[in-house]
Amino acid sequence: MPIEDHRRTRRGMTPEAMLEVAYAEARKGLAEGGIPIGAALFSADGELLGSGHNMRVQDDDPSIHAETAAFRNAGRQRDYRSTIMVTTLSPCWYCSGLVRQFNIGAVLIGESRTFAGGHDWLAEFGVDVTLLDDERCVAMMTDFIAENPELWNEDIGVAE
Amino acid sequence: MPIEDHRRTRRGMTPEAMLEVAYAEARKGLAEGGIPIGAALFSADGELLGSGHNMRVQDDDPSIHAETAAFRNAGRQRDYRSTIMVTTLSPCWYCSGLVRQFNIGAVLIGESRTFAGGHDWLAEFGVDVTLLDDERCVAMMTDFIAENPELWNEDIGVAE
Repeated sequence: MPIEDHRRTRRGMTPEAMLEVAYAEARKGLAEGGIPIGAALFSADGELLGSGHNMRVQDDDPSIHAETAAFRNAGRQRDYRSTIMVTTLSPCWYCSGLVRQFNIGAVLIGESRTFAGGHDWLAEFGVDVTLLDDERCVAMMTDFIAENPELWNEDIGVAE
Repeated sequence: MPIEDHRRTRRGMTPEAMLEVAYAEARKGLAEGGIPIGAALFSADGELLGSGHNMRVQDDDPSIHAETAAFRNAGRQRDYRSTIMVTTLSPCWYCSGLVRQFNIGAVLIGESRTFAGGHDWLAEFGVDVTLLDDERCVAMMTDFIAENPELWNEDIGVAE
């Protein structure tokens, strides 16, 4: 079912309300001195299963992108087909691969102007992809990248 | 440079010797009661940067596949283009996405008979993919899957 059709059924969790949870994670990451990308995994009926943010700087851990943090924090799940991965930024190939392998049913994206990963590829495989083009998310990443180009390139695997 | 050409230059780390490190990780995971998949990340000259194994059972952590464990344990690296990801089993889409996003230059695979993920896709993008078709790796996964079908399906996102 398309995300928009769930507006009335998801405990009031509209797409904008779900993005707010991911955005709050990104702001938390920024306040910690980290890369401001946040994500959250929701069940079909709007229950928050887990949320998290990029931990490259905070934990010196390159494996924890926002989406993998949310996925980890949701714990072991037996079926992801009706879950929704919400992220402030278009998922990179690493995180897009996560969505594909675990058959996460929907991806809700804050913005893809500052970076575009594999969301079109996921849509080809039937993932319900929604792009909100949220101005706050765009501004947050635009500022971060301008101030931390080296760190940003490290996080997306762009070598010098 | 193809993996085979490095036989004399990588501190004696032939493809078989590198696979041995990943295989030992998989055996360690099995002994811990976990899913027996191991991986290791090597530099171009044969230095072990990090190794690890699947931790779904041990840590109740669905985000730690063998390849993401090796990637994490290698710490933050600024350039992965000349690194080699060695894994006992064909990388799933999650782990293939990791390789693509971080431009890991080569992937050395123990076997792809019991499971085939995105290694052909990686080869299309120029990743140097080598498949050893190692009998011990095949036997290890064949036995594990036969004895733990539910756990295996959980690990690759196959719902009931």
